[in-house]
Amino acid sequence: MPLTNDANAADAAAVDTETDADALTATVVGGSGFAGGELLRLLAGHPNFELVGATSREYAGKSVGSVHPNLRGSDLRFVEPGDLDSADVLFAATPHGVSMAQIEEFYEVADTVVDLSADFRLNTTEQYEEWYDGHDAPDYLDEAVYALPELHREELPGANLIAAGGCNATATILGLYPLFEGDLLSGDEQIVADVKVGSSEGGAGASKAGSHPERSGVVRPYAPTGHRHEAEIEQELGASVSFSAHAVDMVRGAAATCHVFPEEPVSKGDLWGAFRGAYEEEPFVRLQSGGSGVYRYPEPKAVAGTNHAEVGFELDPGNERVVVFSAIDNLVKGTAGQAVHAANVALGFEETAGLEFQGLHPVGSP
Amino acid sequence: MPLTNDANAADAAAVDTETDADALTATVVGGSGFAGGELLRLLAGHPNFELVGATSREYAGKSVGSVHPNLRGSDLRFVEPGDLDSADVLFAATPHGVSMAQIEEFYEVADTVVDLSADFRLNTTEQYEEWYDGHDAPDYLDEAVYALPELHREELPGANLIAAGGCNATATILGLYPLFEGDLLSGDEQIVADVKVGSSEGGAGASKAGSHPERSGVVRPYAPTGHRHEAEIEQELGASVSFSAHAVDMVRGAAATCHVFPEEPVSKGDLWGAFRGAYEEEPFVRLQSGGSGVYRYPEPKAVAGTNHAEVGFELDPGNERVVVFSAIDNLVKGTAGQAVHAANVALGFEETAGLEFQGLHPVGSP
Amino acid sequence: MPLTNDANAADAAAVDTETDADALTATVVGGSGFAGGELLRLLAGHPNFELVGATSREYAGKSVGSVHPNLRGSDLRFVEPGDLDSADVLFAATPHGVSMAQIEEFYEVADTVVDLSADFRLNTTEQYEEWYDGHDAPDYLDEAVYALPELHREELPGANLIAAGGCNATATILGLYPLFEGDLLSGDEQIVADVKVGSSEGGAGASKAGSHPERSGVVRPYAPTGHRHEAEIEQELGASVSFSAHAVDMVRGAAATCHVFPEEPVSKGDLWGAFRGAYEEEPFVRLQSGGSGVYRYPEPKAVAGTNHAEVGFELDPGNERVVVFSAIDNLVKGTAGQAVHAANVALGFEETAGLEFQGLHPVGSP
Amino acid sequence: MPLTNDANAADAAAVDTETDADALTATVVGGSGFAGGELLRLLAGHPNFELVGATSREYAGKSVGSVHPNLRGSDLRFVEPGDLDSADVLFAATPHGVSMAQIEEFYEVADTVVDLSADFRLNTTEQYEEWYDGHDAPDYLDEAVYALPELHREELPGANLIAAGGCNATATILGLYPLFEGDLLSGDEQIVADVKVGSSEGGAGASKAGSHPERSGVVRPYAPTGHRHEAEIEQELGASVSFSAHAVDMVRGAAATCHVFPEEPVSKGDLWGAFRGAYEEEPFVRLQSGGSGVYRYPEPKAVAGTNHAEVGFELDPGNERVVVFSAIDNLVKGTAGQAVHAANVALGFEETAGLEFQGLHPVGSP
Repeated sequence: MPLTNDANAADAAAVDTETDADALTATVVGGSGFAGGELLRLLAGHPNFELVGATSREYAGKSVGSVHPNLRGSDLRFVEPGDLDSADVLFAATPHGVSMAQIEEFYEVADTVVDLSADFRLNTTEQYEEWYDGHDAPDYLDEAVYALPELHREELPGANLIAAGGCNATATILGLYPLFEGDLLSGDEQIVADVKVGSSEGGAGASKAGSHPERSGVVRPYAPTGHRHEAEIEQELGASVSFSAHAVDMVRGAAATCHVFPEEPVSKGDLWGAFRGAYEEEPFVRLQSGGSGVYRYPEPKAVAGTNHAEVGFELDPGNERVVVFSAIDNLVKGTAGQAVHAANVALGFEETAGLEFQGLHPVGSP
Repeated sequence: MPLTNDANAADAAAVDTETDADALTATVVGGSGFAGGELLRLLAGHPNFELVGATSREYAGKSVGSVHPNLRGSDLRFVEPGDLDSADVLFAATPHGVSMAQIEEFYEVADTVVDLSADFRLNTTEQYEEWYDGHDAPDYLDEAVYALPELHREELPGANLIAAGGCNATATILGLYPLFEGDLLSGDEQIVADVKVGSSEGGAGASKAGSHPERSGVVRPYAPTGHRHEAEIEQELGASVSFSAHAVDMVRGAAATCHVFPEEPVSKGDLWGAFRGAYEEEPFVRLQSGGSGVYRYPEPKAVAGTNHAEVGFELDPGNERVVVFSAIDNLVKGTAGQAVHAANVALGFEETAGLEFQGLHPVGSP
Repeated sequence: MPLTNDANAADAAAVDTETDADALTATVVGGSGFAGGELLRLLAGHPNFELVGATSREYAGKSVGSVHPNLRGSDLRFVEPGDLDSADVLFAATPHGVSMAQIEEFYEVADTVVDLSADFRLNTTEQYEEWYDGHDAPDYLDEAVYALPELHREELPGANLIAAGGCNATATILGLYPLFEGDLLSGDEQIVADVKVGSSEGGAGASKAGSHPERSGVVRPYAPTGHRHEAEIEQELGASVSFSAHAVDMVRGAAATCHVFPEEPVSKGDLWGAFRGAYEEEPFVRLQSGGSGVYRYPEPKAVAGTNHAEVGFELDPGNERVVVFSAIDNLVKGTAGQAVHAANVALGFEETAGLEFQGLHPVGSP
Repeated sequence: MPLTNDANAADAAAVDTETDADALTATVVGGSGFAGGELLRLLAGHPNFELVGATSREYAGKSVGSVHPNLRGSDLRFVEPGDLDSADVLFAATPHGVSMAQIEEFYEVADTVVDLSADFRLNTTEQYEEWYDGHDAPDYLDEAVYALPELHREELPGANLIAAGGCNATATILGLYPLFEGDLLSGDEQIVADVKVGSSEGGAGASKAGSHPERSGVVRPYAPTGHRHEAEIEQELGASVSFSAHAVDMVRGAAATCHVFPEEPVSKGDLWGAFRGAYEEEPFVRLQSGGSGVYRYPEPKAVAGTNHAEVGFELDPGNERVVVFSAIDNLVKGTAGQAVHAANVALGFEETAGLEFQGLHPVGSP
């Protein structure tokens, strides 16, 4: 990485990771937000990418470290969106609606575009009309691949347009996917996804509801019904899910608890079989169901800062219910890490390249 | 209240509230725990009770303020359980199993017993055999009244044995009760209660899982299935509920999100009708569904420290689902406040006596 | 209090406290901020005041409960500042600069004005020129009384203009005052006040630095030198204090740790003598120095929501140092509660009237 | 690293980092505590170390991931202390007193010992008699090198016994060191160090004071005077410092605010000169003083999970005071990271090897 720190040159050693001679160049559009900052962090430490640019209208001319204190060792500075140099891969972390409006400009900068917004996650204009405000660039929907490698590993190699999934959708999909793959659910059941999320999901802006005095210590229902991530979940699982999200007092993290009532009785063995079948070979999914110690089920704390997802389950025979737990870091596995992981697969890199951080213990609110 | 502070006499003015000339005497068994501390606080400020005793094996001889810093203005000291003087009303905040073993001793101290444990909440020995380890004093089950005045106001006057409900059960019951009362649910539906709770539910002890470094910032599934509060909920609502609890980063509070799928379509009007019908006259239940501002749905923060419950709902027509939210302070409405409220009703006092505190805004983790 | 709730009439019982027949009417200018909300809460529960009005430009026409969820039981609605009816006492919780500009309008509304801003705290225009941007209504400086009853009890009776102290200044002054009163400090020493404060000090607005993701879990120096509260502290103590404030992760609370190096050796006995001499008769100051249990020294948690201050000290013979700790709730003892306390003294009410709340145990981030 | 995960083999890819062919073997005594867990994390990801063992009496036979969820990808299991195999380097993270009692056993296991306790930090038995309970192995005091490379880089190469500094001492020393190096302080001044620390400083045990309900949201003075870290600070700086620590609501982090009153006036230029002179070439110290944005001064959040220290200062001409801020992650720069950094220097590795993690933004309570 070409990150050096003018003022404090020795510092750069710690940021710099050795980049392969044949690394690809990467650039980030929308680098001052939380997801953009995570992209910068992950790409700066990635052996196969050379981070060459980052845009921000608000902070153009300032160092990336002036916004993201963990990047103070870097001398990269934000530029205006129009001043972006070419790169091999463009990562976009812009608000919804921007990427669909600018996709052609993006392709002028780079051959491969990885988009973190919702603009290319859904397959059809009909879905965008139902859940969003339609779509400005419908011709690109066909070529876009939903990023989640656990579901789309075969389609990613060579993809030119990759759409990272939504954080809440990712947590929910990863929890429920084995039940569908393992034929324990048909899709006709009533499925509840009760999701708890951190404040970073609200983005880097300022709002009264998001201010510390009002947001601390909450269990606050938001978008209790009709959340747009239901569209992705339904698309990826082939079944509709009754989704509700709650803000809780953490900064990073999304935890989904899915309550399902299979039509046929299932055993613990069936569940272990389904989850192992789905994830045994996955580098970023850990099964965590019961056992001893403090961390017995999936928890956002246990994966904070990492690209790992934890999934687990419990059987409730008395209510003929299966409860599935899943936990991710919304900014990593839920967006920027998922994007890098998918790019690794698409470009033929080691899947785990740049995503090796294992997290911390103990850690407070992640 | 006879609370005075030797060391700092002027302080007592603030603790002391005027007690009616014909106040009843009250004593607290198990006063050093969190629920016991809340009982002491509420009784010390109650116009119709004179607080005359508190027991604690561990802290006998020490002032109640040495354990509960908010009671430093009081000169009451803990005594050994065997040294308890007679009183009109005995409130017991002991671990489960103690009250059923000591109920006869309790009645030697007082004519009226208000128990905060699970020992007298269920109606039958069969339930105790199914959910607990049986019952030691089954003869008393018939005379015990489940405290929640919103459901049992008619049975409380004159009751000698009152059993305060469990905190999670209380939150869940208050959320779902209007749907049953309003005939919007029959009891045959699959009902999910996804509950988020604060760390005070774990009690005043010390454990590794409950230590600050491990417990901060969590979304941690605990007792994901088979929670004993299911027994109370089923008893009170006449329907089984699929219950799962999660520890989140707050100290006080229980928030229940119930997901139900009525067999017949329901409208928002039906829901408003059911909730208003159930709670319009209730002094401690507030309807909070949507609207503007930061606090649009029930939140534990909004009721922290108070005996209020907030309930609200949202309709999800696409999934034929109703989502019900309810929030309480687990230590007040969920236990000690509920006990005092029920005692007020049982003894003919003003229902809201001693429970006037309206809470704070803003407040952090409640 | 005339607070009733149209939608939920039974609720009003809990908010309503009995008001004396000869209660004075009170009105609040700037009722939508955090300090204003606390004034509304305290006045609504005050036996000697009848709360009759509250202004807010932003929320005029809305109920006070739409902003402050703990006041949902009230039917009071905000009015535009110009629509304020007359009252006996006007409490102003406006940003600095407003009260000095509007003091004459305030006196048209009420005979007694209690101001929570900095506009009338300092005695002279010179101080305002040094620390602020001068003063618009210097003629009123002479009649203003600094609210803190522990220092100004004798001057308050009959005062027409009362200026509540700053929250950080209050914590610092209460900690150091006994050392000056007890002649243990002369004022020539180097005195350090290292203060830790909650996020509610930043007010009810929205800012990036105050957003939950950026503000959570911080120990953040702010205004590390040159804090305007130094002016008040110097005025009240007659000595200059080197003041630095840090934002920490709580919502309510200000804790001052003062490090002083007396010129002559002092003993623990000297310190106990000085602190007892200063506060023995004070209804709202508690000495808390060492001892057993969890809460051995002053802590904001132990006084959250109350008008109490805790003060304590420790002797460091090896460094010839005395460390003084003091803790308050910045929104109560540090502003609105101090204002009500001072008004009680000024108007001849019971000192503790309306300020009886003793706080909660346990409580999270206060 | 030889870490593989039996149950979830693919997972290991992410934990494994490539180890040099000529890596040294390392083992950790006391691996189940917080500092021990950090050693395991850092050594598992270190290119020059092969982690071959970890001891824990309590968890012998269990995987390291059963205690530290971030290490679930590892198949390393704790062994009893007596079952430890030889290694090139032994890192000890045991309670104070253990290393001095077992230093000879340690040397039987490894030629190089890095101790994280206080047992070899002080130079003389006199100091141990004054501040601790004497010393059991005084012969080893001479050969021990205090780890902090910013002060002892020249003495570390070839050292056989390295003593990592205390976390609070490290924060304080790093803040004040430039003032002594730059001759802005003589050591005769009154120097106050007011330190704010996270709950992980209390270690991995269970206590009532450290339980989540009691520990959340605190500003709690602890060891307000007479803290043992004063001994180290005095030793390293040659001056005594009046030290006080406060527990605040974070898990990781130590922030020191030092208030000093230089005998001669100093300018901002003097300060910049002193700090740049001390740290310009340091890979793990960042100067952060003022500027724009949210993070203007040193903050624990900005360095959480990293081996970085942030230091900064502000001049207070009115009080002839300099305020110095410093912030570290107590478990990394304050202990395990400092140990690895010193080992890197001692053994001739790249200084930053294994310590490249740059931290996260945003992050909650670190």
